[in-house]
Amino acid sequence: MLEVLGRDGYAGLTMDAVALVAGVGKATIYRRWSSKTDLLLGVMAAVRDEASTVPDTGCLRDDLVAVLTATVDLLTGPAGRAVRGLLGAVLEDPVLAEAYQRGPLAWWNAAWATALDRAAARGEISAAARASLAAEAGPAVVGLRWLVTGGPLDAAVVSEIVDMVTMPLLTRPQTTPAGPGT
Amino acid sequence: MLEVLGRDGYAGLTMDAVALVAGVGKATIYRRWSSKTDLLLGVMAAVRDEASTVPDTGCLRDDLVAVLTATVDLLTGPAGRAVRGLLGAVLEDPVLAEAYQRGPLAWWNAAWATALDRAAARGEISAAARASLAAEAGPAVVGLRWLVTGGPLDAAVVSEIVDMVTMPLLTRPQTTPAGPGT
Repeated sequence: MLEVLGRDGYAGLTMDAVALVAGVGKATIYRRWSSKTDLLLGVMAAVRDEASTVPDTGCLRDDLVAVLTATVDLLTGPAGRAVRGLLGAVLEDPVLAEAYQRGPLAWWNAAWATALDRAAARGEISAAARASLAAEAGPAVVGLRWLVTGGPLDAAVVSEIVDMVTMPLLTRPQTTPAGPGT
Repeated sequence: MLEVLGRDGYAGLTMDAVALVAGVGKATIYRRWSSKTDLLLGVMAAVRDEASTVPDTGCLRDDLVAVLTATVDLLTGPAGRAVRGLLGAVLEDPVLAEAYQRGPLAWWNAAWATALDRAAARGEISAAARASLAAEAGPAVVGLRWLVTGGPLDAAVVSEIVDMVTMPLLTRPQTTPAGPGT
């Protein structure tokens, strides 16, 4: 399914095309997925299952580079093209939208959150930094380049996001320090 | 057209629906737009024309708040819903994709860039900061919330993005200062 979606987009994802790629009859496909919505839900689960586990390097910067590198690899590969092709359908259908949040986006969100939670537990970043909107800013650059603007997504961009966006934002003082006795 | 798209999405944008809303015959619609692609190109031009001019407050922070507030108003209103509904079609069609970049996204990009260029010219931010990927991080949070994650987009979020993401990133020292004679 990922192969069909990545190549032909959402419009090309038909029961026939999936049966052809899978080398089985259309009846077999229909026994497994009763509708195109079911088929799309299957695609999303497949993408989620492709994602790897979150590394634990003991250092926030290296965890973030590992998570973002895995994310960029996923997004720029066949699974990412498949998921991107689904977005049009997802925007119009609440059932698919919910599955989209739970499936393809879930690994990414969970991996990023795990790296930040560990850093907060180690005292490497403050609880305020962990909870702030600034924690979204790095991954958002990746997401928007991937979906809309089409800017480069490679190892250099991953380093720049981690070192020039996320680390400076999350490790800077979150409030103006109060002077003693003022 | 924006009304039909915002309400019924891309699938609901038919020549019939546009004729009904416009209160004219279908032939009139076809004389103006010969295909659905033409119609969509018209939608994108209409959204671009709705955008206002970039304010010049003389201060980067206030310029960014004004640009981002106008962007959020546009994205969360009928035009924004219309443009969001087009994304599925845009992802599959290079002609529409190019028009999407030139139309709905152009104002936003130009307004943000104008505010940053003025600040660089005043010396409020460095040329390195102006050119860095960090300049994308604030608007990317807005874009991704709007398109995918569905997080809140309001005045509080605009302030948080400007004061907790963009201003700290662009006004911090971009390189380790070189000591004299070292």
